Amino acid sequence: MAIAPALIGLDWGTSNLRAYLIGDNGAILDRLEAPSGVMNWGDRGPAAAMESLVGCWLDAHASLPVIAAGMIGSRQGWREAPYVDCPADAAGLAARMVSVEFRGNRRLHIVPGLKCHGDDGVPDVMRGEETQVVGGMTCEAADQQWIVLPGTHSKWVEVGDGRIQRFASFMTGELYDILGKHSILCRLMEGEGFDGQAFESGVRRATTAGGLLRQIFSARTLPLLNELLNASVASYLSGLLIGAEIEGASQWLGISGGTEARVTVLAGPMLASRYVCALTIKGITASVGPTDAAALGLLRIGRIGHLL
Amino acid sequence: MAIAPALIGLDWGTSNLRAYLIGDNGAILDRLEAPSGVMNWGDRGPAAAMESLVGCWLDAHASLPVIAAGMIGSRQGWREAPYVDCPADAAGLAARMVSVEFRGNRRLHIVPGLKCHGDDGVPDVMRGEETQVVGGMTCEAADQQWIVLPGTHSKWVEVGDGRIQRFASFMTGELYDILGKHSILCRLMEGEGFDGQAFESGVRRATTAGGLLRQIFSARTLPLLNELLNASVASYLSGLLIGAEIEGASQWLGISGGTEARVTVLAGPMLASRYVCALTIKGITASVGPTDAAALGLLRIGRIGHLL
Repeated sequence: MAIAPALIGLDWGTSNLRAYLIGDNGAILDRLEAPSGVMNWGDRGPAAAMESLVGCWLDAHASLPVIAAGMIGSRQGWREAPYVDCPADAAGLAARMVSVEFRGNRRLHIVPGLKCHGDDGVPDVMRGEETQVVGGMTCEAADQQWIVLPGTHSKWVEVGDGRIQRFASFMTGELYDILGKHSILCRLMEGEGFDGQAFESGVRRATTAGGLLRQIFSARTLPLLNELLNASVASYLSGLLIGAEIEGASQWLGISGGTEARVTVLAGPMLASRYVCALTIKGITASVGPTDAAALGLLRIGRIGHLL
Repeated sequence: MAIAPALIGLDWGTSNLRAYLIGDNGAILDRLEAPSGVMNWGDRGPAAAMESLVGCWLDAHASLPVIAAGMIGSRQGWREAPYVDCPADAAGLAARMVSVEFRGNRRLHIVPGLKCHGDDGVPDVMRGEETQVVGGMTCEAADQQWIVLPGTHSKWVEVGDGRIQRFASFMTGELYDILGKHSILCRLMEGEGFDGQAFESGVRRATTAGGLLRQIFSARTLPLLNELLNASVASYLSGLLIGAEIEGASQWLGISGGTEARVTVLAGPMLASRYVCALTIKGITASVGPTDAAALGLLRIGRIGHLL
């Protein structure tokens, strides 16, 4: 017997719009994607961008709720869903959703982002990741759990008592990108092929004396002095930056290796395997969370918010 | 009585060629500069680039020695002067100069760069800075002295027993540059005007928990949440990066604040004042070295090498 669709879920970020037709049991029945993010929809606006991608789903399933998360709820999005303060749980996010009308009588519900202030006064924000975290939280979570969402601006999230307690962002992916494209390293890098040994060496070196600004420079001097192949510079740099991120995040969140520290990685296969590898080197037990955490999170928030 | 010129000194880097007509007492009698660095001389080559800038000095002072330091001695330069290993002193550098002929019977002497391996196996190199360090070393130096040369790739140098013992490079200036031009921060930054309070706040925050990748992200979230003016983001980022450099370098070199730590800064007025300010915040006593350290170093190396 076919599973009936229960929700149209949208993961709507800066660059892309990812759409999921989600079954009642969390199964992904269909998926669509378009480069129609908040910065890309141009003159036609968000309603037309949504219709263009999922118009056929909206026609075929006239009574299904539609929920979106991500930059669509930012000031530059369709309608602003103001940040909710940490700690926050799925019910708190559901209660603070905003909605916009389309096709006359239908509504798009938008999940708000999260805001948090570190002990050191550093503020932080996320939009979209909170929904992935809700999808990636283990259910029997009276325990503490840490969730990392690697990416352009990696997020490290502390979950406890079923709530998102606090989080911090790290500019890892963006720094990797601009160092590879615009710094003196770009002339030394030959290809993006993965060299596991160079990656591991980068992870280990990330925590040696001198700090990250010195270690990044070693990605220049090592190949210059023939101690690293040019084809391995990208892997080494990736290891340095991911290693520095894990070091900084562990310190900030108080995660120490060797204990029963449990980190869940929410990412695609390539990044997930690099993070699991780097965490293992640091002695931290890591596992990979569900691939479609965003869809699972939208379903859970929709259900708690009585939209389905 | 006019001081007689003793040396034509060239500080010849990647982008620029700076020339000094130097008196016997170290006074700069004349100076010239052209964008004729190793990467910029194009088809005409180094001899023509030199003649074009200092041909009149070469005519007027036919017996003066000519000494150059910097990337001119690299593989991409005029003639390679292989790196000398640390520890090294002015006599060691003088002994390893190479030379090229020009105008038939004249010679350009080229000071070699320095190479050093950290305790952690990270190799490092410099070309040009070693000559500035020789010019910036205090003479009664049986004591330990640290010299910092801020810039695109800042160098921290430990001097002891009259020798350069070891050094490390930090990618501070280049990272500041590419973050301001190519990252998400560039849209937030309004101008390069200096805000001393934002700079100080960046310096202090650089050493808080989470590490540099998190702190750089705070340069985005603080203005986003109206806790930092957009006009102050550049100063804040500068403080974060310089603070992280000083933290890493102090750790690597074993410099602790409060003691009789003496750091000499060799830089132009703007950068020198930022470093002195940041070092002072960290409790490290700092002073600014001679402005024309390169010229002083060339004179000292030339004298020890019996070229004048």
